[in-house]
Amino acid sequence: MSKPVTKIGVLTSGGDSPGMNAAIRAAVRTALYYGLEVYGIYRGYNGMIEDEIVKMDSRSVANIIQRGGTILKTARSKEFYNEEGRKKAYANLVKRGIDGLVVIGGNGSFTGAYKLSQEFGLPCVALPGTIDKDLYGTDFTIGFDTAVNTAVQCIDKIRDTADAHDRLFIVEVMGRHAGYIALHSGIATGAENILIPEEETTIEEVITSLSEKEKRKKLVNLVVVAEGHSSGGANGVAEILKQHLPNLDTRVTILGHIQRGGSPTCLDRLIASRMGYHAVESLLEGRHNVMVGILNNAMHYTPIEIAIREKQRLGDDWMKMVKILAS
Amino acid sequence: MSKPVTKIGVLTSGGDSPGMNAAIRAAVRTALYYGLEVYGIYRGYNGMIEDEIVKMDSRSVANIIQRGGTILKTARSKEFYNEEGRKKAYANLVKRGIDGLVVIGGNGSFTGAYKLSQEFGLPCVALPGTIDKDLYGTDFTIGFDTAVNTAVQCIDKIRDTADAHDRLFIVEVMGRHAGYIALHSGIATGAENILIPEEETTIEEVITSLSEKEKRKKLVNLVVVAEGHSSGGANGVAEILKQHLPNLDTRVTILGHIQRGGSPTCLDRLIASRMGYHAVESLLEGRHNVMVGILNNAMHYTPIEIAIREKQRLGDDWMKMVKILAS
Amino acid sequence: MSKPVTKIGVLTSGGDSPGMNAAIRAAVRTALYYGLEVYGIYRGYNGMIEDEIVKMDSRSVANIIQRGGTILKTARSKEFYNEEGRKKAYANLVKRGIDGLVVIGGNGSFTGAYKLSQEFGLPCVALPGTIDKDLYGTDFTIGFDTAVNTAVQCIDKIRDTADAHDRLFIVEVMGRHAGYIALHSGIATGAENILIPEEETTIEEVITSLSEKEKRKKLVNLVVVAEGHSSGGANGVAEILKQHLPNLDTRVTILGHIQRGGSPTCLDRLIASRMGYHAVESLLEGRHNVMVGILNNAMHYTPIEIAIREKQRLGDDWMKMVKILAS
Amino acid sequence: MSKPVTKIGVLTSGGDSPGMNAAIRAAVRTALYYGLEVYGIYRGYNGMIEDEIVKMDSRSVANIIQRGGTILKTARSKEFYNEEGRKKAYANLVKRGIDGLVVIGGNGSFTGAYKLSQEFGLPCVALPGTIDKDLYGTDFTIGFDTAVNTAVQCIDKIRDTADAHDRLFIVEVMGRHAGYIALHSGIATGAENILIPEEETTIEEVITSLSEKEKRKKLVNLVVVAEGHSSGGANGVAEILKQHLPNLDTRVTILGHIQRGGSPTCLDRLIASRMGYHAVESLLEGRHNVMVGILNNAMHYTPIEIAIREKQRLGDDWMKMVKILAS
Repeated sequence: MSKPVTKIGVLTSGGDSPGMNAAIRAAVRTALYYGLEVYGIYRGYNGMIEDEIVKMDSRSVANIIQRGGTILKTARSKEFYNEEGRKKAYANLVKRGIDGLVVIGGNGSFTGAYKLSQEFGLPCVALPGTIDKDLYGTDFTIGFDTAVNTAVQCIDKIRDTADAHDRLFIVEVMGRHAGYIALHSGIATGAENILIPEEETTIEEVITSLSEKEKRKKLVNLVVVAEGHSSGGANGVAEILKQHLPNLDTRVTILGHIQRGGSPTCLDRLIASRMGYHAVESLLEGRHNVMVGILNNAMHYTPIEIAIREKQRLGDDWMKMVKILAS
Repeated sequence: MSKPVTKIGVLTSGGDSPGMNAAIRAAVRTALYYGLEVYGIYRGYNGMIEDEIVKMDSRSVANIIQRGGTILKTARSKEFYNEEGRKKAYANLVKRGIDGLVVIGGNGSFTGAYKLSQEFGLPCVALPGTIDKDLYGTDFTIGFDTAVNTAVQCIDKIRDTADAHDRLFIVEVMGRHAGYIALHSGIATGAENILIPEEETTIEEVITSLSEKEKRKKLVNLVVVAEGHSSGGANGVAEILKQHLPNLDTRVTILGHIQRGGSPTCLDRLIASRMGYHAVESLLEGRHNVMVGILNNAMHYTPIEIAIREKQRLGDDWMKMVKILAS
Repeated sequence: MSKPVTKIGVLTSGGDSPGMNAAIRAAVRTALYYGLEVYGIYRGYNGMIEDEIVKMDSRSVANIIQRGGTILKTARSKEFYNEEGRKKAYANLVKRGIDGLVVIGGNGSFTGAYKLSQEFGLPCVALPGTIDKDLYGTDFTIGFDTAVNTAVQCIDKIRDTADAHDRLFIVEVMGRHAGYIALHSGIATGAENILIPEEETTIEEVITSLSEKEKRKKLVNLVVVAEGHSSGGANGVAEILKQHLPNLDTRVTILGHIQRGGSPTCLDRLIASRMGYHAVESLLEGRHNVMVGILNNAMHYTPIEIAIREKQRLGDDWMKMVKILAS
Repeated sequence: MSKPVTKIGVLTSGGDSPGMNAAIRAAVRTALYYGLEVYGIYRGYNGMIEDEIVKMDSRSVANIIQRGGTILKTARSKEFYNEEGRKKAYANLVKRGIDGLVVIGGNGSFTGAYKLSQEFGLPCVALPGTIDKDLYGTDFTIGFDTAVNTAVQCIDKIRDTADAHDRLFIVEVMGRHAGYIALHSGIATGAENILIPEEETTIEEVITSLSEKEKRKKLVNLVVVAEGHSSGGANGVAEILKQHLPNLDTRVTILGHIQRGGSPTCLDRLIASRMGYHAVESLLEGRHNVMVGILNNAMHYTPIEIAIREKQRLGDDWMKMVKILAS
């Protein structure tokens, strides 16, 4: 059996997502409760290499549960991709006696943790921190609920002005490979069409549906597109639609980075708190190199290498419902 | 086998909850899609008795998915408790040929539907519409997520002023028999103590924990109480605390009815849409007299009489986490 | 003296702005209170030409004070630019005996009202409805406060993610000829630089200030640009900055149409209510062909032709304050 | 002429209000820009007595412009009422060479500043920080706009549930002596009646208006009451109404302390920034012992003793408008 963990490091890495602070807070306080020392590692693996590592106490994480962003900052680290960088980074942990790591981030961040565990035997636990929701082994990822609510609130505003003008709005939301934000925000705002990377909805179908609506004088319409859709995002879609439906008064809005920020929703704070709490318990109980998730209302532990490889898949019957409800 | 349903009525009953409009919209549009006629019944069972029943089309539910409250209005009906009232109500359905019913509400509303199905053989489907979340057979109830986010946003504001003044705030949230709003909003706002009807946390424990905090000069504290806690809600708690901890600067806030209103969150719109959609499919497929829920990510159908009788139970390990994280 | 007004029409025209519904409500109810008949004209001058004119009562404007957009819809009308169109439009008013007009919109909408008053002697009153705030003769325009708060809330979210990543964000807000949204939202979010059409701030100054900040390791920076700034908006600025400051991690967000929608702020509802109320009083008291404004806390009436010609000018000392506060 | 100020102290005192942090930030950065030293005094005059005084630099006020509450904390100090306390406090300033003071707060806080200026010749400048808006010599007070928007958003939510149930809601907002929050939030939410300390509206008028409405079946009604109204706030009003209108379904909500917190609106951040900036300029230019206000769009300086003595008065014609618009 592995040696008990006594000092842990916590870091956030990759794209930031709302709720990361709640996860940091939970991990830090749970570790302190169990008598561990805790270190905050700044700017993800960059800070591990650059030795930006600071001891944390209970006050370090006071009054942050409601804040967007991450107090530990985040970054993508190129140097960490090669072994040299990782050795340097690991040496900084060893120097302080850090013998356990909590990593909050997405796929790329998990890969870093996996490397550390493989190359140096460092016990790692990963938390799913991404607004994209497409990670395997968990029903929730930290930040998705906030991001999708931000998108919904913005699209609600856009609908006000679309209604006032009888306009077609094409709204682009985040999601390079995953359509969850587009799908959920589109359904929740009554979008007429939703274009996501995972589905075959073609622009032709959108054109058909919109021209049918034009005929019956339904002129206020909303199309939600994931940035990663093959059409080239909202601008791509708009260009094609203008060619085929030149009479429609069309506007494009790209929501962009506002989807990453903001005070986290209750759900994101709650799952982040639970995950941070169970991350430390997991390290203590010797359940290492796993991603902590919540599946069917229970904590669920997926080996990191599987979490990296697999994707959460969209269910099937969504698109039929979209079509019926937006009619 | 039962005759196929051809005309359905939709009503909301009991306390309103955000997302009811999204459920109405989904039920109406799905029914129209399948060629059914749809009638809106106003003011719950009251309107069924008083014959406030109006035919609905697709436009009737346009632009409502984002609205709080319920366009069909709601009420509690005393007359419906006796058979006379129900006969009168049912006659109004028969008059129009309404042969299926979608009821959105809580426990009391389900009882009404159950009576109609038992006494007149009317096919009914119930949707869980309550901010209290304690219904059996579903992980989500329509309105809970919005209510708890409203509570969280309010408590965040209260914490601003608590911090500025080094005060103890006692905040009362809704929940006569169920502590879900208190529990989730309390964890999400870092409450020091959470008092809910289901748990044995005594005021003594709160006093102990607060006086320990007073000793180490942690003066900003937050206690979240469900209105149904045995101490008599926030005012009851405040009175006891003032006796035992007279040096604390204590304030009470009762959030009240703001928790029922507001534009629904993405999650509430989404589950309400799915439930409304599957309610109609359920009626069409002959799956009658059930409550439509979502359990472990899949639609789940609970016989109404069981949904009425059973309660969702809180998990166990929450309170330990509360204590550790608020330290 | 002119004949007393007995039947009025109300319309919204040009770009929509939050609070227009509050102004409609106030105008309608005040007119009804004084015994006038009121007609809603849909889609601005378009609907006047197409005869989309509907009688309104007190219920027509119930429950709209909190809604974004405009229940009367809005449009820009090309046909109204030529006399033929205006004659047709006026005939539709005459047909109903409409002898007074309340127009809510911006400069272009005022021009339409001015033409009607000049060509047909129709008593008109104009209300300043624009998110741009640059109208002459009023301290407030309906919609500005909401738009600028929407911008602020979005930029707050962007700052979360900018902070997490040490990034430079360039945010584009609305304002083709006027920098009010950029200036106010920029100051309110602590922007390092603000670029507006009215001021000479050159990109060179921005480069100088950012490279000075780069030297002292202040990497999180925010530049707010009005869409009408000579640099070509946020994308234009980003391109130039990337050339001169290649080490900065730069991102662009264009807030776009979300600034037009949303539930109006208290201030916008209040000034819209006052303006709508005084518009009708103004018509009744024979104060015609004026724009109703609020200047130095009192109602102020500017002849429409002057309101069309003049612009509100920015005060001087803002930019010095921006520089000092963002240091 | 007085000696030039070289070191200033900044404090917040009395009830906190959103935007105080923006004012602190502006005062600190403007002072640093002009080469002054700046000290933060914690917990108002309490901290001055207890010597909780900390030197501040530009980073001390980074990332606070958007935060509710006050980073300097606030308190009411009994000890400062007697000369002994003030001597002790002033000695702590002298010890550090602090020769100028910026006080952010309401009437009581101004009195403290006035005493210091009278007794010790300390140059003071006061900023109007109160959600009540009733201070003399300024159109804006820091926090009012945020508080009233919070009230409006809450009442909007309450209206959702009032509408769903055909209920009468009586909502109490803050304001012991001033009715501004009640008046503005009441108009902005279309309240049927508004009860404020300054006006003679009697409960009898409310009863008359509500029973007239009951007769014409308008059952959804909203009464907004300032806590300081002679009827005894919302509970007092409800009791009387229930006696006279027993058929109405009446509910009470007391908004309470949520009105003090929350991220400040654009307007509050802007005026707080301007006031903080001009407070320091005022100290430097020898304009001492004044309250910095904004009147008719220009900075306005009122001698503190006048600011303490006088009140802002409500305009007259508001109540007529309330009655007409809510009809």
